[in-house]
Amino acid sequence: MKIEIGHGSGGKLTRELIEKVFLKHFDFPELKSLQDATILSAESEKIGITTDSYVIRPLFFPGGNIGKLSVCGTINDLTVSGNIPLYISVGFIIEEGTEFETLENIVKAMAETAAKSNVKIVAGDTKVVEKGKCDGVYINTTGVGKNVRTLTPLNAQEGDVIIVTGFIGDHGIAISLSREEFDIETAVLSDCAPLNSLLTPLFEIPTLRWMRDPTRGGLATVLIEFSESSGLGVKLYEEKIPIREEVRFICDMLGYDPLYLANEGKAVIVIGKEDAEKALEILKSHELGKNAEIVGEVTGDKKVQLITSIGGVRHLELLEEDPLPRIC
Amino acid sequence: MKIEIGHGSGGKLTRELIEKVFLKHFDFPELKSLQDATILSAESEKIGITTDSYVIRPLFFPGGNIGKLSVCGTINDLTVSGNIPLYISVGFIIEEGTEFETLENIVKAMAETAAKSNVKIVAGDTKVVEKGKCDGVYINTTGVGKNVRTLTPLNAQEGDVIIVTGFIGDHGIAISLSREEFDIETAVLSDCAPLNSLLTPLFEIPTLRWMRDPTRGGLATVLIEFSESSGLGVKLYEEKIPIREEVRFICDMLGYDPLYLANEGKAVIVIGKEDAEKALEILKSHELGKNAEIVGEVTGDKKVQLITSIGGVRHLELLEEDPLPRIC
Repeated sequence: MKIEIGHGSGGKLTRELIEKVFLKHFDFPELKSLQDATILSAESEKIGITTDSYVIRPLFFPGGNIGKLSVCGTINDLTVSGNIPLYISVGFIIEEGTEFETLENIVKAMAETAAKSNVKIVAGDTKVVEKGKCDGVYINTTGVGKNVRTLTPLNAQEGDVIIVTGFIGDHGIAISLSREEFDIETAVLSDCAPLNSLLTPLFEIPTLRWMRDPTRGGLATVLIEFSESSGLGVKLYEEKIPIREEVRFICDMLGYDPLYLANEGKAVIVIGKEDAEKALEILKSHELGKNAEIVGEVTGDKKVQLITSIGGVRHLELLEEDPLPRIC
Repeated sequence: MKIEIGHGSGGKLTRELIEKVFLKHFDFPELKSLQDATILSAESEKIGITTDSYVIRPLFFPGGNIGKLSVCGTINDLTVSGNIPLYISVGFIIEEGTEFETLENIVKAMAETAAKSNVKIVAGDTKVVEKGKCDGVYINTTGVGKNVRTLTPLNAQEGDVIIVTGFIGDHGIAISLSREEFDIETAVLSDCAPLNSLLTPLFEIPTLRWMRDPTRGGLATVLIEFSESSGLGVKLYEEKIPIREEVRFICDMLGYDPLYLANEGKAVIVIGKEDAEKALEILKSHELGKNAEIVGEVTGDKKVQLITSIGGVRHLELLEEDPLPRIC
């Protein structure tokens, strides 16, 4: 059975789609009222809001799919900004002719990710467009969280430590290879994961300055933006940066720089030197943080420098554009 | 100048787009932090959340454009659900090759509508897809409001009065004719408008039961859904329903039923009989409500009936699908 234009028209067919696919998996009482807006407890005087649209190609990739990615992405954006994620709204744009089963597998992944992350899907919308006016399914997720910490680059100080929570570049490589443009066999999976259970324990540490998930543009872009916003610099030690051998090898072969490849289940953390070991211990005790490493430090100049394994210095700069479009 | 794939990649080009188009018009300090999530005051223990994606064709139409529509739609969904709209997030999906000027005109309309409605645009995201994978621009807007009233169909009682805030069907006709499929000249404009200043004064009236903006599916669909959710019925008086002569005429000619045509600046209100005149007075004192009318009443059976001008009875039922896809 395929999605038709009528499934987005607001009539009987739309209701059928909502009941047979969305409400079947999104088992949240808040959503079931099907009113124009959902009423929720703010749980705090301060809330965090984030929005992202997902247009990733292909829809299903090693390690995840657009549904899982869209929920993880929003959970991670809320978390790295100092919020405990609470609620997510979901807007679908679906191409006519998409199989019901495809959509259902996406919806199932969203529901599972939300459930295991203790986040509720509370509002939704569906539009259907003609064949050739979309690429299967696009998803917008917008998240609301309870704000706990104000984490900005302006909190950072010279001498602070930079931590990366695990191997970088996996998502970029998994997506690139899944496009079948290359004939490379690999076991690299996207790292796509919800990071709230890994990162929210760090909210207790007073010297936690700033966090970010290095998605589009990767670790390098995130640190360059950190440097610009904070007015400080960064010194990264190449040999400390966790990169899988396989990812490094494929990058060499395809001419990618892993520092600029997207990640969807990693965070960069800036924290006071005195608390770095404590933070590392917390991170390493979690499955998603077991490969966390201290990779560098905050400096007083405005440069973002990579100290290479042989002791050379490379200045990192913003790319014109990402080598892999539609990575999220 | 045209939008390129690189404008959605998260690098230098993306930043250029954000600065030259989005931040130029979206003059909200909350947005300018450009962090992964924006921290805001909840202003209330209870918040309302709504989400909608907009895929309207054409992007510009008599009376508005997709930008104005996307902000109005979210403001209206929050308002009819008993919330004072506060914050809106915006997610763009843009087709490669779209003119900067087109995007800028859309963004300008969003900014103007937000400003005049006292709503802040606080978070955003931009993705660019290849030519033929989108139809110009799609927009998701998600809104957060301060919840003031709990308005559900379950509040309604037999004998309650049904009010419509003005002429119905304008949006549907304006969009239909702007598609140039017909050779009809008309001055009918979309009614696309933010309704918060019109409707929030009604929050003071204790017998305000329920409101809804009759968008996809129109007045008839909204009342059928009201009947199903409340377990009550509706009697509508055809001669009381405000419809422009011109809209009636075009509907006759094209075979549309105005009761099922989309509106983007109207509300249906269910209110206690004792307060109906007071509500009407409040509505009529506002430019957007000057043509408001009492159009019917809530009955004890579960039927949605239209009493025609000549005294006949027509049962209104849910359509399989809207006659006009991509109307919002």
